[in-house]
Amino acid sequence: MSNGDIFVGEIIGTAILILFGAGVCAAVTLRYSKARASGWIVIAFGWGFGVLAGAYTAAPLSGGHLNPAVTFGIAVDTGEWSKVWVYVLGQMVGAMLGAVLCYLTYFAQFQANVRETGTTEGTAEEPLPTLGIFSTIPEIRNRVANLVTEIIATVALVLPILAFGLTTGLGESGTLVLIVSLLVVGIGLSLGGPTGYAINPARDLGPRIVHTFLPIPNKGTSDWKYAWIPVVGPLIGGTLAGLIYNAAF
Amino acid sequence: MSNGDIFVGEIIGTAILILFGAGVCAAVTLRYSKARASGWIVIAFGWGFGVLAGAYTAAPLSGGHLNPAVTFGIAVDTGEWSKVWVYVLGQMVGAMLGAVLCYLTYFAQFQANVRETGTTEGTAEEPLPTLGIFSTIPEIRNRVANLVTEIIATVALVLPILAFGLTTGLGESGTLVLIVSLLVVGIGLSLGGPTGYAINPARDLGPRIVHTFLPIPNKGTSDWKYAWIPVVGPLIGGTLAGLIYNAAF
Amino acid sequence: MSNGDIFVGEIIGTAILILFGAGVCAAVTLRYSKARASGWIVIAFGWGFGVLAGAYTAAPLSGGHLNPAVTFGIAVDTGEWSKVWVYVLGQMVGAMLGAVLCYLTYFAQFQANVRETGTTEGTAEEPLPTLGIFSTIPEIRNRVANLVTEIIATVALVLPILAFGLTTGLGESGTLVLIVSLLVVGIGLSLGGPTGYAINPARDLGPRIVHTFLPIPNKGTSDWKYAWIPVVGPLIGGTLAGLIYNAAF
Amino acid sequence: MSNGDIFVGEIIGTAILILFGAGVCAAVTLRYSKARASGWIVIAFGWGFGVLAGAYTAAPLSGGHLNPAVTFGIAVDTGEWSKVWVYVLGQMVGAMLGAVLCYLTYFAQFQANVRETGTTEGTAEEPLPTLGIFSTIPEIRNRVANLVTEIIATVALVLPILAFGLTTGLGESGTLVLIVSLLVVGIGLSLGGPTGYAINPARDLGPRIVHTFLPIPNKGTSDWKYAWIPVVGPLIGGTLAGLIYNAAF
Repeated sequence: MSNGDIFVGEIIGTAILILFGAGVCAAVTLRYSKARASGWIVIAFGWGFGVLAGAYTAAPLSGGHLNPAVTFGIAVDTGEWSKVWVYVLGQMVGAMLGAVLCYLTYFAQFQANVRETGTTEGTAEEPLPTLGIFSTIPEIRNRVANLVTEIIATVALVLPILAFGLTTGLGESGTLVLIVSLLVVGIGLSLGGPTGYAINPARDLGPRIVHTFLPIPNKGTSDWKYAWIPVVGPLIGGTLAGLIYNAAF
Repeated sequence: MSNGDIFVGEIIGTAILILFGAGVCAAVTLRYSKARASGWIVIAFGWGFGVLAGAYTAAPLSGGHLNPAVTFGIAVDTGEWSKVWVYVLGQMVGAMLGAVLCYLTYFAQFQANVRETGTTEGTAEEPLPTLGIFSTIPEIRNRVANLVTEIIATVALVLPILAFGLTTGLGESGTLVLIVSLLVVGIGLSLGGPTGYAINPARDLGPRIVHTFLPIPNKGTSDWKYAWIPVVGPLIGGTLAGLIYNAAF
Repeated sequence: MSNGDIFVGEIIGTAILILFGAGVCAAVTLRYSKARASGWIVIAFGWGFGVLAGAYTAAPLSGGHLNPAVTFGIAVDTGEWSKVWVYVLGQMVGAMLGAVLCYLTYFAQFQANVRETGTTEGTAEEPLPTLGIFSTIPEIRNRVANLVTEIIATVALVLPILAFGLTTGLGESGTLVLIVSLLVVGIGLSLGGPTGYAINPARDLGPRIVHTFLPIPNKGTSDWKYAWIPVVGPLIGGTLAGLIYNAAF
Repeated sequence: MSNGDIFVGEIIGTAILILFGAGVCAAVTLRYSKARASGWIVIAFGWGFGVLAGAYTAAPLSGGHLNPAVTFGIAVDTGEWSKVWVYVLGQMVGAMLGAVLCYLTYFAQFQANVRETGTTEGTAEEPLPTLGIFSTIPEIRNRVANLVTEIIATVALVLPILAFGLTTGLGESGTLVLIVSLLVVGIGLSLGGPTGYAINPARDLGPRIVHTFLPIPNKGTSDWKYAWIPVVGPLIGGTLAGLIYNAAF
């Protein structure tokens, strides 16, 4: 795969992933959305099928990593680090592009978010913060605990991905990405409770940058103090998964 | 594939799609339905498995497009436009047939919709509008925003469909349609909030025509002012997806 | 396939189907069940994965029809009616066996159903009817409408099943039954609202016979007046699907 | 497969299974979890995708049993008992490891569980018992009924698993584990109501041991009186499934 194909593939694939993932958070969170308050099952399947859409689309060009933690895990396994920067750069550009596309898809809803606060009667939703649509926010702020959660959840993502390739017939039948997308649904359902499961530095950092600059009225904080945890945690997790894989398989 | 096979395949496949899709909206909306108020997850999976049912059934005859936006995207990619009219005609006939089948499946419920309004005690559901079962209605009316939403959501449908065919083993294993149906579930979950995700001109226009003529008591408006957006948006989206695909892959 | 294999396969497969299907209705309905009131999405996936479990298990022995309507549709298609009686007999025995297994699985809950009504304080759930766990009950009683619903829903089951076999690679990859089980989930979500989707004469009649004789305290009516509709409707639907298939494919 | 590979594979696979399974129970149960009170559908899919993650990961090393009941069923079928102890030992170690990983993932939530009870105002959730996150608890305590439920549910797991291998193309295409994981979702939805579906002695006993020793503040009883039922029931069920399989197939 050429650097150009990898770069383009990761941009397109990660943009689709974030469009779906941020999209489902917008769908469940924002006023005047038909999916409002439809629950955790919707969030988890939305993100999982975002992986399905993005990774199958990117697969012919770049293999469809869409996640620096996955790229790190594979690099640790293969010892091949020379193209890691191309992958990560594409993933960051794609994540930012996806966040913008989500903003455009829910443009009227984001605007109404503000208009609603313009009324004088005070409702509980008035200044609805929007960061949760773009990036992760922990339920309980505890640096060590949040970091541990992200590390474990990312190992639970990357170690299976590395091992799946060994299953006879899985890749040849084209169902590999389907399995990975259901794995991501499972991580969301099971391990997403404490921190909202970044498990992907680009997924969290890219949209956070976009959130900082987007002119969403009354958008609330971009919470940069927390931003290093969903970057560092998944990178440690991906590396750890590569090491465990090399030791055990 | 002969024109006759394509025509018959698209009629049958699109009729099944709309029977399931309009059906799940009826199931969640109408009084005296066991699935009443069962939420967005039901809507999204109902439409997705409608694609599964319709597209697998139509596949041997027509390839199972079921959607003019998909047909346009493929035509832009291949440069072959000569059979587009057969596809689109079959899709429109099938969509209208499916809407009628949904009406027959929920006949007693549609009748009860009216009988209920015959009582003198005023309940909040009294004149329950039925258009939402057949066609899409935006949560916020904003021509530009609604159009953009439909364009982005349709690109998110058609670009992956075009790319999926490149994944090794996916087409040969027969799981291609399964993946596409889960992609449609994902689009519903993530991108359906603002407009109800037509992403298919036939899916919206065909049932709207049927809604206009069906003798559903107290059925409410067919909202023809909005009707052009879920036709034009998806056609632009499908064409755009074909262009992006040709440029990037 | 020998008559003995078919008979045993259909008994085991249909028993598993009904154990899961009646089981999920028990899970959602009965007091002291962890899944109580968990909604229509649970019902539809429970039945669908019952098809998955039963049909994959029966497949090597009998092909896994589990449903006289499917057997009829295949017989109309192939013109081979000589083994239909073996299939239907196995399906009926299996459906009754599955209903008994569901009763045993939820034995303590069924007993508590009665004990609860022994208290003197009146709650709304007091005499909880149990037929809905075993067999279908229409939301609105209307012979013609109920029959039409069952016919359309069964065509939507059997026509795709007949057509799926034509998709290249679907059967060879072993995913055929998976697709059918998701089709059944879709039928439940979309078409189950009015009558609770029998779409299978054995699925409804077998458990109704068992319900009539089981010593469930305070079990309520077995509603034999309605019993012919979920038998006749699906048989008409399966036959109709075979005819449409032969005409169109 | 060497004993070492089997041992390592079962440890890793079962640890992942329990991390996801206990994780989803924590997600739905604990305060300050984003998935709190998200319902039975989340529980069932969380456990099912835990099987998917764990079994695909372990498959290249050990075949991915992850469950003594499955190991017993296969041993009854093949008559090969010499490696059963390696499997079961790995499964027990893995289950305990997975329970610890779940505890670490939800560490801050488990701590907050206690802090919450430190307030003086009495809320209904005050001393939240945590055993249900780790091990199963019956809704109605009835030794015979609980045992029967676990036996039937385990037969419904192991008999299909044994039979699935006979379906043409299923094993070769790598989708076998996917089907099994959806089977487990189905068992949860349909048969989990009375006892919470252990259907796996290691899944219940391992985490119960861990629960006994973990320093979770105010954790409640580990309920050792009930502990034999989710061990003995599944072992009987797995053995029974092997016998039925040998008789019928």
